[in-house]
Amino acid sequence: MSNSYGHIFKITTFGESHGEAIGVILDGCPAGLPIDREAIQQDLDRRKPGQSKITTQRKEEDKFQILSGVFEGNATGTPLTIVIANKDARSKDYSHIADKYRPSHADFTYQSKYGIRDYRGGGRSSARETAARVAAGSIAKQFLSTKGVSVQAYVSQVGKIKLEVDHTQLDLNAGEDNLVRCPEPKVAQDMIDLIDQTRKNKDTIGGVVSCVIKGVPPGLGEPVFDKLHAELAKAMMGINAVKGFEYGSGFAGVEMNGSSHNDEFYVENDKVKTRTNYSGGIQGGISNGQDIYFRVAFKPVATIMKDQQSIDQSGGKTTVKGKGRHDPCVVPRAVPIVEAMAALVIADFYLINKAIKL
Amino acid sequence: MSNSYGHIFKITTFGESHGEAIGVILDGCPAGLPIDREAIQQDLDRRKPGQSKITTQRKEEDKFQILSGVFEGNATGTPLTIVIANKDARSKDYSHIADKYRPSHADFTYQSKYGIRDYRGGGRSSARETAARVAAGSIAKQFLSTKGVSVQAYVSQVGKIKLEVDHTQLDLNAGEDNLVRCPEPKVAQDMIDLIDQTRKNKDTIGGVVSCVIKGVPPGLGEPVFDKLHAELAKAMMGINAVKGFEYGSGFAGVEMNGSSHNDEFYVENDKVKTRTNYSGGIQGGISNGQDIYFRVAFKPVATIMKDQQSIDQSGGKTTVKGKGRHDPCVVPRAVPIVEAMAALVIADFYLINKAIKL
Amino acid sequence: MSNSYGHIFKITTFGESHGEAIGVILDGCPAGLPIDREAIQQDLDRRKPGQSKITTQRKEEDKFQILSGVFEGNATGTPLTIVIANKDARSKDYSHIADKYRPSHADFTYQSKYGIRDYRGGGRSSARETAARVAAGSIAKQFLSTKGVSVQAYVSQVGKIKLEVDHTQLDLNAGEDNLVRCPEPKVAQDMIDLIDQTRKNKDTIGGVVSCVIKGVPPGLGEPVFDKLHAELAKAMMGINAVKGFEYGSGFAGVEMNGSSHNDEFYVENDKVKTRTNYSGGIQGGISNGQDIYFRVAFKPVATIMKDQQSIDQSGGKTTVKGKGRHDPCVVPRAVPIVEAMAALVIADFYLINKAIKL
Amino acid sequence: MSNSYGHIFKITTFGESHGEAIGVILDGCPAGLPIDREAIQQDLDRRKPGQSKITTQRKEEDKFQILSGVFEGNATGTPLTIVIANKDARSKDYSHIADKYRPSHADFTYQSKYGIRDYRGGGRSSARETAARVAAGSIAKQFLSTKGVSVQAYVSQVGKIKLEVDHTQLDLNAGEDNLVRCPEPKVAQDMIDLIDQTRKNKDTIGGVVSCVIKGVPPGLGEPVFDKLHAELAKAMMGINAVKGFEYGSGFAGVEMNGSSHNDEFYVENDKVKTRTNYSGGIQGGISNGQDIYFRVAFKPVATIMKDQQSIDQSGGKTTVKGKGRHDPCVVPRAVPIVEAMAALVIADFYLINKAIKL
Repeated sequence: MSNSYGHIFKITTFGESHGEAIGVILDGCPAGLPIDREAIQQDLDRRKPGQSKITTQRKEEDKFQILSGVFEGNATGTPLTIVIANKDARSKDYSHIADKYRPSHADFTYQSKYGIRDYRGGGRSSARETAARVAAGSIAKQFLSTKGVSVQAYVSQVGKIKLEVDHTQLDLNAGEDNLVRCPEPKVAQDMIDLIDQTRKNKDTIGGVVSCVIKGVPPGLGEPVFDKLHAELAKAMMGINAVKGFEYGSGFAGVEMNGSSHNDEFYVENDKVKTRTNYSGGIQGGISNGQDIYFRVAFKPVATIMKDQQSIDQSGGKTTVKGKGRHDPCVVPRAVPIVEAMAALVIADFYLINKAIKL
Repeated sequence: MSNSYGHIFKITTFGESHGEAIGVILDGCPAGLPIDREAIQQDLDRRKPGQSKITTQRKEEDKFQILSGVFEGNATGTPLTIVIANKDARSKDYSHIADKYRPSHADFTYQSKYGIRDYRGGGRSSARETAARVAAGSIAKQFLSTKGVSVQAYVSQVGKIKLEVDHTQLDLNAGEDNLVRCPEPKVAQDMIDLIDQTRKNKDTIGGVVSCVIKGVPPGLGEPVFDKLHAELAKAMMGINAVKGFEYGSGFAGVEMNGSSHNDEFYVENDKVKTRTNYSGGIQGGISNGQDIYFRVAFKPVATIMKDQQSIDQSGGKTTVKGKGRHDPCVVPRAVPIVEAMAALVIADFYLINKAIKL
Repeated sequence: MSNSYGHIFKITTFGESHGEAIGVILDGCPAGLPIDREAIQQDLDRRKPGQSKITTQRKEEDKFQILSGVFEGNATGTPLTIVIANKDARSKDYSHIADKYRPSHADFTYQSKYGIRDYRGGGRSSARETAARVAAGSIAKQFLSTKGVSVQAYVSQVGKIKLEVDHTQLDLNAGEDNLVRCPEPKVAQDMIDLIDQTRKNKDTIGGVVSCVIKGVPPGLGEPVFDKLHAELAKAMMGINAVKGFEYGSGFAGVEMNGSSHNDEFYVENDKVKTRTNYSGGIQGGISNGQDIYFRVAFKPVATIMKDQQSIDQSGGKTTVKGKGRHDPCVVPRAVPIVEAMAALVIADFYLINKAIKL
Repeated sequence: MSNSYGHIFKITTFGESHGEAIGVILDGCPAGLPIDREAIQQDLDRRKPGQSKITTQRKEEDKFQILSGVFEGNATGTPLTIVIANKDARSKDYSHIADKYRPSHADFTYQSKYGIRDYRGGGRSSARETAARVAAGSIAKQFLSTKGVSVQAYVSQVGKIKLEVDHTQLDLNAGEDNLVRCPEPKVAQDMIDLIDQTRKNKDTIGGVVSCVIKGVPPGLGEPVFDKLHAELAKAMMGINAVKGFEYGSGFAGVEMNGSSHNDEFYVENDKVKTRTNYSGGIQGGISNGQDIYFRVAFKPVATIMKDQQSIDQSGGKTTVKGKGRHDPCVVPRAVPIVEAMAALVIADFYLINKAIKL
């Protein structure tokens, strides 16, 4: 019963993979915001299936329709509803798992929790739901850009292939120049090759998406529980297949001493800055004006093209056939999803921070 | 304005490091639960300062008082309020930073956000606030134990010293046998030595706390946004000094293939189990009945006993003196905090999961 | 930004009067509940415009589509989305008020708050939005009927014509036998005549809807702020045109003495009962097992068929023409809306009350 | 589990009538607000028991202590905690009802819901809890006064004695000049006499509190569910003994025609005004800049000084003795409670309305 996210800038998503449609209600979009439909479509296209040889071949146009909340091109402050039809659902591809539990999928847990599940395409647990987030997140990015805030994600690891370069040394726009969305062309090619090889092996592989948020003013985040990085963590961990989150120095910071980890303050051009940024732009749960950056770990996709042993709903042994259309690696398509959720978090905190002022 | 956590089993904490008191209201504790005051005190003692040579020497008894919500030893279902007085606050130790921003502390961000801050002992941003969480979390553990659920955390890394053993191979109770709360005595001693040496160097060091939750029935967690691991992540990231969270295979899972990462289902004694547990006991955001386990990364404590360059409130250069009483490494005292927040998350989802049944 | 209602059994509505569609997401419907589509349509038909001579002549079929959350006839526990298209919107009827503020409408306040408004048909402030509530409320009633709870509303006053009979003396089903939904045929006829005469006078008139909820077990309601009657009040006051709410003895109880107002407890057939029921089935904010009943006051509809003086957006004097298609009295169509909101409140409290048990 | 109220400006109250203390955490008070302790005490004194011959004779000083959230006289933006000790609790006065259900009290419903209850003084269901609301509400009024908003309540009816004068004709400050808090001295005296006579009759009587909020700018309130009057209704209905709420024309408006009920807009001194104000300052759920006014109905106090028939916990017949110290009429002391809850609602909406702006 938790299909809503956010406090003021709040979304509620709906829809199953093979149902009529998926969609989202964005409640709390500031009135008067011009809604750029092309930008929404662009973000949806970055996430949509079938976009390249290293993604699933399911073909969805992911054209959207706005049912409410926009008048003469601008948000009205009332619920903004976006619907995306499901068109290329091949539900019969799933009849073979109607009463089987696919390993490391949500089949068993949904059945345990609800006593019923729409098994077609994974139903509600399908990552198809994230298209709705991308649409709403695109509007969040549009709102944030009016405040000088940018949100950009990219692939920084696939399997063991890591982009070792720091985000400050990268042209983040270059991520969109290749299929895998890694801004370093040579590393990108290695990643693409690895994914392609993995696909040919009928297997899947994990990856990491990094994200950088620039231009966030000091003051966003609501201690002690809704710290900025705590909400970012929740937002990211809520994306399908995510297993880990770290910001700033992250797990590597564990091995450092305070004397080298501490970020020294200084003033330049009347702006407070820090010489290093191990804090990842957040201190005490509140943005400090420096770049916010974090990394999100995605596991290998659970659906593989090999047969696997499992059980059925009555507990009997069974074999799950390797078939259907799936991604060999989820991170290229996850980039706009990470951006969307990050933008939703920042937009929400931006509005909340205005509210609490005297 | 976000000092509350949880939906049904919900806490609100209050208090500054050097104010009158800190405390917590637990709203939603099921009526009739016997409240074990000794167990609460025990958990507070595990967190309290001054407990050993490797923790801060601030002396707080952390005796608590229950102001409401308990009648004749049992919870009444009304708000259960616990207050812990501040006794050994030495506020004058902080007068030197009244208008300075300590590096990698929350001084600058609180000042930016609120335009005012109680600088004494870090005010609200002090980890002292977590004592309130520990008290409430202890009650959550008491509730969960009536359901057969246990929550146990331990230190698995300090600096570069890692406990490489899997939690299934450990006696988790052994963690309490030594100062650093690592269940492997030899590794524990190395950790203690490292912390002690770091302290002598007037420096600090990071660490990792691991946590294992056993006995959680299938079905807990509320997709798509309040996935069980997403709430655990938020709860952990909301603890002071935390920089990263991973569950199950975590960041290491990124390098695996789906064929080896997938957890095969089987049935034993009429219970559904998995042969491996890379899923960390959670699939699709819902518990699957296997052990839930996760790791939490803590940065090195920001307060060091060395002088540091920084700025003051008017932007001028200044030196922050290294003084006061602080932990050289936060993880030994963080163990009960991690348990508390984990228990609060599980208790809340336990109650929610009952609600949504037909 | 508050287009959601409820905690566990939670709805979010969307849509403007003359937009593409209106609709609702019901998040938290217990999985496994059979969804009776005919019953939903029946409730929508009770609310729909053009149903009789005493309602607006706008013709909307109000046929609905379920986009998600139902699989093979049963709720899946995932968001249940219902969409109702707008078909007979005559937006050009509203071009004359595009920049005028109709008296006692929401034109001025929406413009003040949002700086923009969809003036067509009142946009989001139109009572057309309540169709979405009726659809979701119908499912709430279906859920409640599995628990033996019934929710029935009826018209008890139009202008000065009052139904003086107590609800315990009425056949509540008889309300559906006439156009005005008053269960006493003679009073009903007087009401119909009054509404018809008012319509001919190009004027409008107010009314009262009474509601009775039977079969609610003791224990529903969450003090101290979410008392059962407090949520009922909020739910009712959130319906368009409502000006007052009272339950049990209500405003009349003010004039009574405690000695006659107190409801004496007794036991009959092992059930606790009260000899009188001035408490309206709720004591201390919690249901006591007796009938819950309350009254909701509706003002006369603001749109009248006469010209009125007003101002335009630039503050100049203007005349608002009396035209369009509108109800001369809102209460006959408000009956299913009152039932819907009441059912949503009770269903939500029912689920919450399960959650908080040990 | 619902002891919190508000979204941004949010309170959580705790405490039982005869426990250690009652209190409140105010989370979301804008940082920098000067906290006027005398004003808080003044409001508490207006509510406190034993203030005159027409109130209960329980003697509580209701001195408060601020445990957190204020630094050097100003709110810090962190949780502001206020505690009020219980001093004159005579719990033995209640031993006779430990296992009895007092008529029209919350004894039976609390026992049904929670299976346990602190029977002493009514426990959590006691109106003593409202002192915590008054303290927080006093701060809300302090915040609102910085925005030019005033909140003033007064007694407008006791039994059948009504103050028939419109609020626009009254000197609202005069309410504090007499024991019953009715701004019209002659009517006040009649009310006092009636209450005194009722007390001598060992009985109780109901009353109405009216409230006027001036200076609210257009734009407050969040349709469609959190309409300004809907939240006011919920806030008022959550006060002990309240049975009804109406705003603007209220129940009387039911009998009016639209042509006379509609409030004509005009402009004076560049401000939009309405010639009449049947809307009660709220249109479409949003404030329109005119005075907001509403009426709250209180039932006669359930505790009377006469013996009453009832049942005990095992269902047996029993007599409830008329004893203890109680109010013969609740409205004089309810005046500051109504103001407090109203101020909390307005303050919350004020902050939310800032948040949603572009």
